[in-house]
Amino acid sequence: MECWNVGILVFENVEVLDFAGPFEVFSRTRLVPGVESRRSEDSAPFHVFTIARTAEPLTATGGLRLIPNYAWSDAPPIDLLVVPGGFGTRVLRNDAETLAWISSVATSARKVTSVCTGALVLANAGVLDGRRATTHWASLDTLAGLRPAITVERGPRVVDDGVVTSAGVSAGIDMALYVVERLFGSDVANETAHYMEYVRTATAASSTPTPIPG
Amino acid sequence: MECWNVGILVFENVEVLDFAGPFEVFSRTRLVPGVESRRSEDSAPFHVFTIARTAEPLTATGGLRLIPNYAWSDAPPIDLLVVPGGFGTRVLRNDAETLAWISSVATSARKVTSVCTGALVLANAGVLDGRRATTHWASLDTLAGLRPAITVERGPRVVDDGVVTSAGVSAGIDMALYVVERLFGSDVANETAHYMEYVRTATAASSTPTPIPG
Repeated sequence: MECWNVGILVFENVEVLDFAGPFEVFSRTRLVPGVESRRSEDSAPFHVFTIARTAEPLTATGGLRLIPNYAWSDAPPIDLLVVPGGFGTRVLRNDAETLAWISSVATSARKVTSVCTGALVLANAGVLDGRRATTHWASLDTLAGLRPAITVERGPRVVDDGVVTSAGVSAGIDMALYVVERLFGSDVANETAHYMEYVRTATAASSTPTPIPG
Repeated sequence: MECWNVGILVFENVEVLDFAGPFEVFSRTRLVPGVESRRSEDSAPFHVFTIARTAEPLTATGGLRLIPNYAWSDAPPIDLLVVPGGFGTRVLRNDAETLAWISSVATSARKVTSVCTGALVLANAGVLDGRRATTHWASLDTLAGLRPAITVERGPRVVDDGVVTSAGVSAGIDMALYVVERLFGSDVANETAHYMEYVRTATAASSTPTPIPG
């Protein structure tokens, strides 16, 4: 069975739900329905890990303490990149090493995604040029001001224009379920939502689904 | 300003969104509306921390690595206890030391809550006897079988019968917003949800709000 490596970027002052929502969705997705299938990795289509510049412990917004699963230098190849947001993106989006790393991963990954103000980091890495994108409602004007080549969408929770961006914080759950649906179908996405008791809202009102490289 | 200490119990194989949802809600709540107020602790009515038997790193479901903020032995007094669920509760709910710790905290805390199968742990600690309660849909029968003195509710996402329990995984977000609303009013809860771009579902259909000790 095909298994996607999902790398979720973490950093100082990353917003907790921004990374934890997609982590939950991707790590709990199974191709076999029900609860019991989720106790093993047998039908898991994703291998999910957190990744940071180094593997040193870091502190998320609110004081949650994390240990990244991998440093950039020792991580497996990333098929699906998730860039979450949070107050830490104010530093991150102007950090040349981070932008270079994202730009490099984006050229080899099969799909690049963001949650909340993670879009501002993707923008500065040049990944959103020529595309429609969204971000947290309080940062829509900032995103519009960063790069004129980005068309900012102010309504939908999820925008898919090749790169998949989402609105703020909890919209990352919808983004992840949307990606699951695109890759493995609505039954698999809906079973995952059912397991999580998550009520899916109308997602991806702005979607131009592009082929995902096999 | 009054500030509540929120202790979120973490353990091996705790479900990621079970603890991360309430962590996000309580740690991002501010009495002053808007986004900017959330950049400081000035109007934060909660001080949120993770707590475990020891402060050693542990692994949540899916492989997320955490460092608890406190061990049981060195934590501040807990005003609001959150017991999340996950596969790890199969061990936890039969662990005498954990049940004794929960029982002890429950006598001094102002409010006790659970997410998902965290209710099974509260049940075995005797905290739910004589109360209505709920849990993840796949564990409702298990909860009903544990203690005849518990009335299991099979519909609502949040049940408040003095102790506040919730349905599975993402319902912990609704549980936390419900508690915020009870303590600080609907404006504060709705502003927090708006910041998180979370669409609140009809919560606490089964509520017998009890006074919260001041």
